[in-house]
Amino acid sequence: MVHTDRRPRHPGAMSAQDRPGRTPRPQRAILAVLGCLLAALACLPVAQAEDGYELWLRYRPLDAEQAGDYRARFAQLVAPAQTDVQRVTREELVRGLGGMLGRAPTQAQRADRAGALLVGTPASLPAIARLGLELEGLGDEGYLIRSVQADGRAATVVAANTDAGALYGSFHLLRLLQTGQAVDALDLREAPKVKLRVLNHWDDLNRHVERGYSGQSIWDWHRLPDWLDPRYTDYARANASIGINGTVLNNVNANAQILTPMYLDKVAALAGVLRPYGIRVYLSARFSAPMEIGGLKTADPEDPAVRRWWRAKTDEIYALIPDFGGFLVKANSEGQPGPQDFGRSHADGANMLAEAVAPHGGVVMWRAFVYSDEEPDDRHKQAYTEFVPHDGEFRDNVLVQVKNGAIDFQPREPFHPLFGAMPKTPLMMEFQITKEYLGFATHLVYLGPMYEEVLRADTHARGAGSTVARVVDGSLEGHALSGIAGVANIGSDRNWSGSHFDQANWYVFGRMAWDPDAGARAIAQDWVRMTFSPDDAVVEPVVGMMMASHQAAVDYMTPLGLHHLMGRGHHYGPAPWVEGGPRADWTSVYFHRATKDGIGFDRTTGGSDAVSQYARPVAEVFNDPARVPEDFLLWFHHRPWTSRVSSGRSLWDELVHRYSRGVGEVDRMQATWTGLQGRVDDERHHQVERFLAIQRNEAQWWRDASIAYFQTFSGLPLPAGEAPPAQSLEYYKALEFPHAPGDTQ
Amino acid sequence: MVHTDRRPRHPGAMSAQDRPGRTPRPQRAILAVLGCLLAALACLPVAQAEDGYELWLRYRPLDAEQAGDYRARFAQLVAPAQTDVQRVTREELVRGLGGMLGRAPTQAQRADRAGALLVGTPASLPAIARLGLELEGLGDEGYLIRSVQADGRAATVVAANTDAGALYGSFHLLRLLQTGQAVDALDLREAPKVKLRVLNHWDDLNRHVERGYSGQSIWDWHRLPDWLDPRYTDYARANASIGINGTVLNNVNANAQILTPMYLDKVAALAGVLRPYGIRVYLSARFSAPMEIGGLKTADPEDPAVRRWWRAKTDEIYALIPDFGGFLVKANSEGQPGPQDFGRSHADGANMLAEAVAPHGGVVMWRAFVYSDEEPDDRHKQAYTEFVPHDGEFRDNVLVQVKNGAIDFQPREPFHPLFGAMPKTPLMMEFQITKEYLGFATHLVYLGPMYEEVLRADTHARGAGSTVARVVDGSLEGHALSGIAGVANIGSDRNWSGSHFDQANWYVFGRMAWDPDAGARAIAQDWVRMTFSPDDAVVEPVVGMMMASHQAAVDYMTPLGLHHLMGRGHHYGPAPWVEGGPRADWTSVYFHRATKDGIGFDRTTGGSDAVSQYARPVAEVFNDPARVPEDFLLWFHHRPWTSRVSSGRSLWDELVHRYSRGVGEVDRMQATWTGLQGRVDDERHHQVERFLAIQRNEAQWWRDASIAYFQTFSGLPLPAGEAPPAQSLEYYKALEFPHAPGDTQ
Repeated sequence: MVHTDRRPRHPGAMSAQDRPGRTPRPQRAILAVLGCLLAALACLPVAQAEDGYELWLRYRPLDAEQAGDYRARFAQLVAPAQTDVQRVTREELVRGLGGMLGRAPTQAQRADRAGALLVGTPASLPAIARLGLELEGLGDEGYLIRSVQADGRAATVVAANTDAGALYGSFHLLRLLQTGQAVDALDLREAPKVKLRVLNHWDDLNRHVERGYSGQSIWDWHRLPDWLDPRYTDYARANASIGINGTVLNNVNANAQILTPMYLDKVAALAGVLRPYGIRVYLSARFSAPMEIGGLKTADPEDPAVRRWWRAKTDEIYALIPDFGGFLVKANSEGQPGPQDFGRSHADGANMLAEAVAPHGGVVMWRAFVYSDEEPDDRHKQAYTEFVPHDGEFRDNVLVQVKNGAIDFQPREPFHPLFGAMPKTPLMMEFQITKEYLGFATHLVYLGPMYEEVLRADTHARGAGSTVARVVDGSLEGHALSGIAGVANIGSDRNWSGSHFDQANWYVFGRMAWDPDAGARAIAQDWVRMTFSPDDAVVEPVVGMMMASHQAAVDYMTPLGLHHLMGRGHHYGPAPWVEGGPRADWTSVYFHRATKDGIGFDRTTGGSDAVSQYARPVAEVFNDPARVPEDFLLWFHHRPWTSRVSSGRSLWDELVHRYSRGVGEVDRMQATWTGLQGRVDDERHHQVERFLAIQRNEAQWWRDASIAYFQTFSGLPLPAGEAPPAQSLEYYKALEFPHAPGDTQ
Repeated sequence: MVHTDRRPRHPGAMSAQDRPGRTPRPQRAILAVLGCLLAALACLPVAQAEDGYELWLRYRPLDAEQAGDYRARFAQLVAPAQTDVQRVTREELVRGLGGMLGRAPTQAQRADRAGALLVGTPASLPAIARLGLELEGLGDEGYLIRSVQADGRAATVVAANTDAGALYGSFHLLRLLQTGQAVDALDLREAPKVKLRVLNHWDDLNRHVERGYSGQSIWDWHRLPDWLDPRYTDYARANASIGINGTVLNNVNANAQILTPMYLDKVAALAGVLRPYGIRVYLSARFSAPMEIGGLKTADPEDPAVRRWWRAKTDEIYALIPDFGGFLVKANSEGQPGPQDFGRSHADGANMLAEAVAPHGGVVMWRAFVYSDEEPDDRHKQAYTEFVPHDGEFRDNVLVQVKNGAIDFQPREPFHPLFGAMPKTPLMMEFQITKEYLGFATHLVYLGPMYEEVLRADTHARGAGSTVARVVDGSLEGHALSGIAGVANIGSDRNWSGSHFDQANWYVFGRMAWDPDAGARAIAQDWVRMTFSPDDAVVEPVVGMMMASHQAAVDYMTPLGLHHLMGRGHHYGPAPWVEGGPRADWTSVYFHRATKDGIGFDRTTGGSDAVSQYARPVAEVFNDPARVPEDFLLWFHHRPWTSRVSSGRSLWDELVHRYSRGVGEVDRMQATWTGLQGRVDDERHHQVERFLAIQRNEAQWWRDASIAYFQTFSGLPLPAGEAPPAQSLEYYKALEFPHAPGDTQ
């Protein structure tokens, strides 16, 4: 049921039949042919729904002129299909070129006409070997795309050292066409700068997704391994198209049952679907699994029986999944078990698992998002305090996975002080793709600028230029192992991500994991062209909305460095008044510290001294209220309400101004989008329009509730022209959302 | 991403271009035209996915000859669109006729050519008034479809007293075309025999669906009322197409929060989407809501404050939803609160609510599925025992909703003894559409024959012919109010029902709710034609599979009247060994009562005497092991293992025989389906094939585990030729399914 298409399907298509009178004979012959064709047309089904399922791989027909050019360039496809990876590569090219160009290229064993597309490796395709291309430096996953003469004829070659490289190159080539690039003189070389580019699914075995706003888990555990939902294949295609090469199937708040034989069979079945797309499967391991499913009395990593159990379990996994990636572990954090329960260190725990997977080439990704059950003086400091002393103690197949900031995926955080502080350990970046603290799926917030800001931040660990990107890609300290993880925003919703625009966050994550130096704007441009329309009249305004959206959300939620003011538990909506409960650092008042005198968390040398966890040039800037970037002012400083900021306004006035500015930006986004009606398909246009209306309402709610609350401290009037909150503070405080999605179970 | 289409999209479509040499001039002109058309063709998107989303409303193009006939009959559409119901009626006709005939009829204000289709009421369309049709007797929802002469021209009329009747008639007309019926001399009159035809969604506010095997709840509460998923409209269309006119949105194990203003706004938004399709919204009311959300100390139905609270709450609902249907209540059952908590009767509780909704024209559907926390001697007897004494005490806007059988939606149950036993009370049938006890969504089990068996069962309440259908449709006792409810199998899965064939159970439920005398086979034929193919080479074998499928499931799960032997809690798979726990009647051993001497629950006059709850002619049959239908033998009798059954076999041998027979039937279903490859689209064929493989495995599991277990009692060898169980009994007993879907939360 294509609900948006309420029009007759082919209006007037047969109207010639209705005309009275006779038609001259030759035309009648033509009309007869036409009749057949029209009949054929009438039998063709209606337009494909634009429901978002196809993501950025829509492969819609290009305009005739462009399609003609490309068709001549890609008239023939020479691509082996001896292996599974080769087979899916060829399938994708046939699908993509066929969709965009109106017909797929003819397939051939060797190029024998102009306009051949050669895809493969020197080993898989002799023609590529004969070209003598420079493939060194492309590694296991890189590729080149080049316009060449092959046997005297113009051809295009996608060449790599491995099948996976050729697959990635093929997706890149398709992207060139999707985004309307010239392809007559191609000379591209690409290799990923980061080795492990991994999605983390916080998916429970009952299909609940923690912090998921896109329906259920796409993993239908109950019907696995017998039913392999075709969706798994499309998931793999989407990931391969942006270079993601690993996926952790289950929640870091892990259930040991995933390691039982029944579930490992299911995991193996999924691995079989993902393997041809270059994607390895990883599992979150519950540290206490030897007790829960192994019948042991302890999970002490120094206990020989525990070590044996993990080795045997790992061997069992690799017998089923020879290319199993390894384990992700959340230990001694938020109630999860871990080595500290047995008096051991994070390094002890990680190394035990690393030893088990090492013979098989696996890795351990050990999360640094830890905080003990005791209340710390400043949670900001804890990961650094716990992990830095162990730098150098981890086995060489361990990565420590560090969130982008020290608190928890807030709308904006300064980069985590661990980056640059553990030179002997590969530090894996953990970004959140799902918008736990950013309005769930209904707020349009493009995360590219946020990722970019973090990756380009300079740790100064080895002097200026020691960016977080250089730490993460391993180049700063010369680590061979490197990784970026993204907490997935993927679910069973038809559009995968809960909203059309949240697909862009999956997309930009993959592109930046491949190349941490890539630009958020350029990636947004690609995404809009592929996802909505190559029409510049669409691309430029939509990219403009996207690029402004992150700052807008920061402004209407947590301006000037405020953080962690969301509703308790579910993190939906404003709740700066949250206090009490089991832990101070699970309240809002802990983080904003508003008083009659001022607002903000003093993390300076005179306060919690978190600043000193950064390299000195960074610490000096963060420590100085005059030099700290204003976006982080209240992150590091407790400031008087009447103090001046760079705009010349008082802090209070600036706070109100920024809240309103955020709401105003959503107004502009709405106006921009409304102006695109008719240029974007009705189905997606309507949903985005409705979601923007929700975002606008909720932005106003954030502004109003926050201002109403903070005014009880500042005691100051609103600046001139600023509307008072629509409701009383008591109204906002009374709102409850007992069934908000994505909460922990 | 259309995952099944791995072929080039239009293979060879442009191959003419590649041919060498010149073509003579006239043909060149034609070829030029052809070229344009082929180019147009190339721009058309690929075939619509057959992913099941469209249900039985696919409206695919008919074959040319048939389409031509119909096109002449329906060349012009004269249908008003002044009201919302009229508007959606016309939209559906345009969509359906346009899809099937290749073009929609022209729309006109009045018929001015041959081949007009007139749709409406005498009030909405003067041409219909002029025809002077006999519309009496059609009531508020009936319609007639007739071939007529209108103003001297051949026309077809769909006429009714109400817009809703015209909507139903329009869907009926579309069905005639979908199933290839002749339409040249139509003279059909239809009116529903049952007034309330209602789906019960056991959907929780967190989108969990109790006993749901099709993903999450389709109600996206978090984003309501601002986001109205287009799926709601398609849900309404599907229901209207089969005459369903009501839906209970939330679980009978109710959460009082649904009655808070925040949720009522969301309910009202849904009601607004469903209203144009003739569907009223109902809510499950938690009896203790006055305490939970009303701040009262009691929910005693005799307490004036409680009565006031419900009246005010009801008025609040009707202010938002003027056509609100009323309340469904599960009270004093499985831990739910109810009037007995306050020393009041079911009638007291129901009447309090009935009084509140009566001024607004609402009803109360009060469930008879009750059993107290004390263990009864035979749960079979409890509903009768509790409700019959109150017959005559219920207000006239109360229906008592009775499950089809006395236990709980078992694969096969004798009809519930309440039917026929409460002549003064409208008894509403409650069928389960979702297959809680029938293999979840992966087993192909068509429930039409089961519904038919129950509806045609003769209660003998007023002599022979007092069928359950006559009780339910109100005709036996002359009740104006009547209803049938079905526990929905609808969820967020793309195909709505978790499997393609489970859509048929939604379909047959609606058709039988409209007409309890309709035949399961004829309905299956319609459904297969509309859903898969009108090709008889598909229809006959598929209908054959469907019609045999229920008996097959009974055979491989619970033959000869066995019941309630499924896994504890989740009800997945065989677990006849379940014993212990909080209640005897939540165990398997309570129901099968196997001993060394025999097996079965003695409900005869010498046993629990449940048989005496039936009218004497029925009771006499059920009480006699020689006369009781063998399908209910062990339901009513405890029989020795070596006793003879009608086949001449011993009971033990017959039991084993039936288990194996059920497995064998699934073998045949698989063979039949495999033979349809190429006649059914690949996408659905593949999924059904995989699901049948799961069903086959699980049927074998049921047989083997059951035989292994019961053999420990019978001590008898397997009959010759019967394979022993594949695994040990201990193996089967050790299986655990901690995350099986649909369990209670």
